[in-house]
Amino acid sequence: MTVGPLLYAHERESMAGSELTNMRSPRVKAARRLTKRAYREQDRKFLAEGPQAVREALKLGGVTLELFATAEAELRHPELITEATLQGVPVHRASGEVMSELSQTVTPQGLLAVCGLVHVPLEQALGGADGTPRLVALLAHVRDPGNAGTVMRAADAAGADSVIFTDASVDPYNGKCVRASAGSLFHLPVAIGAPVSAAVRQLKERGLRVLAADGAGKHTLDDVDLSGPTAWIFGNEAWGLPEEILAEADDVVRVPIYGQAESLNLATAAAVCLYSSARAQRVP
Amino acid sequence: MTVGPLLYAHERESMAGSELTNMRSPRVKAARRLTKRAYREQDRKFLAEGPQAVREALKLGGVTLELFATAEAELRHPELITEATLQGVPVHRASGEVMSELSQTVTPQGLLAVCGLVHVPLEQALGGADGTPRLVALLAHVRDPGNAGTVMRAADAAGADSVIFTDASVDPYNGKCVRASAGSLFHLPVAIGAPVSAAVRQLKERGLRVLAADGAGKHTLDDVDLSGPTAWIFGNEAWGLPEEILAEADDVVRVPIYGQAESLNLATAAAVCLYSSARAQRVP
Repeated sequence: MTVGPLLYAHERESMAGSELTNMRSPRVKAARRLTKRAYREQDRKFLAEGPQAVREALKLGGVTLELFATAEAELRHPELITEATLQGVPVHRASGEVMSELSQTVTPQGLLAVCGLVHVPLEQALGGADGTPRLVALLAHVRDPGNAGTVMRAADAAGADSVIFTDASVDPYNGKCVRASAGSLFHLPVAIGAPVSAAVRQLKERGLRVLAADGAGKHTLDDVDLSGPTAWIFGNEAWGLPEEILAEADDVVRVPIYGQAESLNLATAAAVCLYSSARAQRVP
Repeated sequence: MTVGPLLYAHERESMAGSELTNMRSPRVKAARRLTKRAYREQDRKFLAEGPQAVREALKLGGVTLELFATAEAELRHPELITEATLQGVPVHRASGEVMSELSQTVTPQGLLAVCGLVHVPLEQALGGADGTPRLVALLAHVRDPGNAGTVMRAADAAGADSVIFTDASVDPYNGKCVRASAGSLFHLPVAIGAPVSAAVRQLKERGLRVLAADGAGKHTLDDVDLSGPTAWIFGNEAWGLPEEILAEADDVVRVPIYGQAESLNLATAAAVCLYSSARAQRVP
């Protein structure tokens, strides 16, 4: 591990050869508490775990505050250690035990970054005061962090301009959500905490057609023209979207079910909707 | 709980008022061992957990061998208890503790069926000797049971004719897979254990175009004509499909990535591919 002289002076625990082995070390405890939402909000930081998330955080730049790495992970991903050091990010070597303590996975991958929050105000996520996004995913009442992260990843892949987590949705900084997003949290603007109505109003004002994805929709994906700018609202897996949200949407659209399945998994349905839009907007 | 007189005589443990509370009871142990693949294969039975799976198993008929239910679940789902009884399925009332022992979920839903295996030989899954299926999903080397179950559910929803688990894929009777399939395991013919080459040969002989879904594909979903009978091969999330399988396919197709995401989650990608086929086969 290479550590600049300035870091060397200030970061005694992370100097070459020394390893964090004490789970009660203040540095480990400060990171560990970020597994809880209340502390993430208070400290305005979150954890990004595994080489993929760390790579994307470093690529975005300016968000990685600290990096914990086991000796093994340092050997396996020297380019990430170098990049962190170049960005002036303190790199702490951690023992396997400390990493297990910090990790929220069964098989920790040996790399974990402490990051500053990356979400932006709603207006900014929509491209500023005059922004006219073409594809937006709005998560209303999505509670499962794995689903939310998978939707973020699908939105990113489908070329969406932004993802909005409304006030009743899961925290995008939840460890499972960050992991399921596979780096996408660092790729596209994410807004959090807006009430659904406020978000829908903003989207409509910008000329987007707001479609609620719901199994109770009158129209199916195959019946609607998706070539224009569109925002998709995705709801809770178990009970879909509440009446008042369905009423605010321009249309309620369902993914057609051709077989005997009752419904699709939320993230799967979202991917099918977002890709239908992406295709309709691109393929003549 | 209503139990017919015949059952009443033979199933002393399940008579009204009596409840399975002993985790070492032979009946509980016999069910419990089905959480392991080796015993599922030996006993030719598997567990279907939760009201949705139990409902679909009963709807299919002839596969439910026993039903365990907590008193609470009996009250919440009387129609399932009645249906099981009508089908002559022994219903065992189980204590919450016994249910926790049998369940593979953190919050057991109080209903668990012991079922006979439902898969069929490959030829039968393809509609018999002269069968000409139009849409087939082939899981090659898919190892994550949650992903495999979600693909089954998506294949069912997209109106696929069958799902094939090749020899190197996860066991579709794995508890997580059954749960993620949300009943679809009971909806469409599933074949297991065939080598990839054998399955591909059969599919080609029946006039299906065999497409391997892989991020390295030359063509994207938007460039290929999907209106004809198609079989999709889905591989391992981490390393995709091996060269020899890519070589056997008629074409290698990728889901286009319009944003910065490196790839899609396997189940998400599968859903997008299967729905593209479903749409191309139906919408002129």
